[in-house]
Amino acid sequence: MAHAVIIGGGFAGINAAKRLGRSGKVSVTILDQRNHHLFQPLLYQVAMAGLDPSDIAVPIRALMRPYRRVRTLLGRAETLDLENREVRFDGGVVPYDYLIVACGASHSYFGNDQWESHAPGLKSVGQATEIRRRVLVAFEQAERASDPEEQARWMTFVIVGGGPTGVELAGAIAEMARYALSKDFRTINSADARVLLVQSGERILKQFDADQAEYATKSLRSLGVEVVLESRVTNIGAAGIEIGETRVPAGTVLWAAGVQANRIGLQLKSPLDRAGRVIVRPDLTIPDHDNVFVVGDLAHTPGPNGNPLPGLAPVAIQAGRYVADLIVDEVRAENPPDPAHRKPFEYNDKGQMATIGRKRAIMQYHKHKKNGFLAWVAWLLVHIYFLSGFRNRFFVFLKWCWAYLTFSKGARLIIQKEWRQHESELLSPVVGSLDETYRHDGDTPSPRFESLTRADHINKPQ
Amino acid sequence: MAHAVIIGGGFAGINAAKRLGRSGKVSVTILDQRNHHLFQPLLYQVAMAGLDPSDIAVPIRALMRPYRRVRTLLGRAETLDLENREVRFDGGVVPYDYLIVACGASHSYFGNDQWESHAPGLKSVGQATEIRRRVLVAFEQAERASDPEEQARWMTFVIVGGGPTGVELAGAIAEMARYALSKDFRTINSADARVLLVQSGERILKQFDADQAEYATKSLRSLGVEVVLESRVTNIGAAGIEIGETRVPAGTVLWAAGVQANRIGLQLKSPLDRAGRVIVRPDLTIPDHDNVFVVGDLAHTPGPNGNPLPGLAPVAIQAGRYVADLIVDEVRAENPPDPAHRKPFEYNDKGQMATIGRKRAIMQYHKHKKNGFLAWVAWLLVHIYFLSGFRNRFFVFLKWCWAYLTFSKGARLIIQKEWRQHESELLSPVVGSLDETYRHDGDTPSPRFESLTRADHINKPQ
Repeated sequence: MAHAVIIGGGFAGINAAKRLGRSGKVSVTILDQRNHHLFQPLLYQVAMAGLDPSDIAVPIRALMRPYRRVRTLLGRAETLDLENREVRFDGGVVPYDYLIVACGASHSYFGNDQWESHAPGLKSVGQATEIRRRVLVAFEQAERASDPEEQARWMTFVIVGGGPTGVELAGAIAEMARYALSKDFRTINSADARVLLVQSGERILKQFDADQAEYATKSLRSLGVEVVLESRVTNIGAAGIEIGETRVPAGTVLWAAGVQANRIGLQLKSPLDRAGRVIVRPDLTIPDHDNVFVVGDLAHTPGPNGNPLPGLAPVAIQAGRYVADLIVDEVRAENPPDPAHRKPFEYNDKGQMATIGRKRAIMQYHKHKKNGFLAWVAWLLVHIYFLSGFRNRFFVFLKWCWAYLTFSKGARLIIQKEWRQHESELLSPVVGSLDETYRHDGDTPSPRFESLTRADHINKPQ
Repeated sequence: MAHAVIIGGGFAGINAAKRLGRSGKVSVTILDQRNHHLFQPLLYQVAMAGLDPSDIAVPIRALMRPYRRVRTLLGRAETLDLENREVRFDGGVVPYDYLIVACGASHSYFGNDQWESHAPGLKSVGQATEIRRRVLVAFEQAERASDPEEQARWMTFVIVGGGPTGVELAGAIAEMARYALSKDFRTINSADARVLLVQSGERILKQFDADQAEYATKSLRSLGVEVVLESRVTNIGAAGIEIGETRVPAGTVLWAAGVQANRIGLQLKSPLDRAGRVIVRPDLTIPDHDNVFVVGDLAHTPGPNGNPLPGLAPVAIQAGRYVADLIVDEVRAENPPDPAHRKPFEYNDKGQMATIGRKRAIMQYHKHKKNGFLAWVAWLLVHIYFLSGFRNRFFVFLKWCWAYLTFSKGARLIIQKEWRQHESELLSPVVGSLDETYRHDGDTPSPRFESLTRADHINKPQ
């Protein structure tokens, strides 16, 4: 029986594995360095304390439970040996007959990787909880700060990148400041938070038509977001961000700009595009290797108009299924057909949507467009529908109802790893120390907090 | 208006703050190094992937929302200056008229602090998610391992300490291995996992009567847990644990033994007991300071029979309320009474309970005892009832129904912080690296994973 190795448990990998598993004609190994499949379109809600990680992440192993011929391995692919048809990972070697590389992409800082620690991107659960922590800590710091400049800095949030993720983050922070947090502080007024969305181009959401982007811009502005267009980030540091020549002191900077494909693509020795994506043939294989497929965000898939297909979940899902069907067909055929005559991959455009705050969205499907509340309801239904696993759907739906009715956020936790580093362990990436769970940077003088009676921030005596 | 400072947002601190806030007669600052109040009795369920952190943790700030005279500060108390009546923390100084110290306790390794990295305790959300990660990674490592000894080591889980937490962890791991994970692996049979509960004394659960402990021991054994009595841990390392003279190779060791009070107690310059707890007077103050109270797990509170009251949530809750009432009464009185004539704190014993697996528990209330399924239902109702916040109650209840009906665990995520260290930041405790999110210890040779068709671990062809 032919054996397929799938690297990566994202939308492309999971969908390929399910279909191959269901066929019963191919045995499969799915390899991922994380144990969970992530429903990335809702990741910003984890970052914004609306959902818990387990609402949008499911163990790959649990998804593969029905398919006895699919084996899940937690591990990181290290070497793709196309000659000998095997994949070396951190726990051994797996030979393959078919290889599906679906390792996705991460953020690109355009050559300024030192910005990353000051401006996290949003691709993994770990990053989402880190962003959540930073945003919540910023409000706490503002509440503690005695220096007004310091306070203003903590109350400033900058999001770099005007794509759907940037728009969703900006809208969510603005709304959280206005509603969810509004009665919780005594010194600051959380609604005074400044939220900037910085975009280098002349408009945001360039994946959408201009009128849709215009609607989104207006909606963001009505929420109090400052949409800063045609502006380039020139520096990011601990104190804030420089936009062109302007320094903006900011306690929190989030990165939702460029995309950089996984470096494993380099090992395929095939042409890459500028973002590091592997340029694939119409059947999603690479030149000279009819049995090696690249799918999802790692692939540069030529689209009908010559542009590559966008890095969207539906593209990855369809590509994963296409490859699985193609492999199953060839394995089933008594005389395997010439790979040169494979039917090319065709993307069936499902349109796209983006949401702005808690009751507005934009959507676009070929020539059809919708925005406002109805689009938001559609966004909600589509995302609930595609969320994997009935349990997740059920709980996310309930949490959304709850949040909508109460204006509150259920997952406002600042959680730090409390662990000492231990070098020789598998577990080493998780560190931190019990003795420094909360550390002040020490430069600012210690203000005195007088008794509340002497301060004037108690505006309503009980 | 008098100002009270509360250090610590656990059961004692929160309950004191609520009552003081409700009175409107005292202004309050509540200081905690974490932003959330934690419902500790259910923390083991977060560690066992049954609940999410946000199900059992609520921002202190959100709990204090109704009380306009209560101010919440995120920060760590550093110096208690009893002379000048002020608390110095990492963000400034707060003066007080009344001080309530409620900083709780952490685990004691009996002088072997080097064991901590190999055998985490369970006191904070960070520790719970770390334990969850270790347990889930252990099964993944066992699935990957080619060496049978290595595999057996990863399949061995040792819990040190036979108190309620140890019993709950052991029962939950055994059940997870038998049910929730049973169909998810292809190489290992997760039900083969070995779970050891190690207790130095001659029986577990010494807080309970002997017959109740006997029932719990039998229940654990019926779940496959090896209850090892009268055995002392002599060493813990990366490879496993030494119990007396016996070496037990184990991939996961969890610590649920001794308790050590927060070191801040040292600053009160009052007598401490062996666990570092501050020995308080009948009104929960310390000698020579009628306005300084110590409550919760940090306090050694003499009980009716001479023994100190146990470190239970009801004790902390009642003590917090007692102190708040006492302060409010004094503030309200025109002629404050002599503190020497304060009515002493009296603990109203609410009994105690512990749960074993998914349908058995023991409970004890004065002379009344119950065990089995009905006790488990009672345990469930009591915990739902005391869980803070209607939202949390609602979601925990639903998740329990779900888990009970489906035998599944909803939060089986292995999440690593993916962050580069940046020294000069408040955020520094969270580190890790994008380049080493999953690292093998490198000592074992790389096994070859042959195509699944050649292996015999596919026992049921589809």
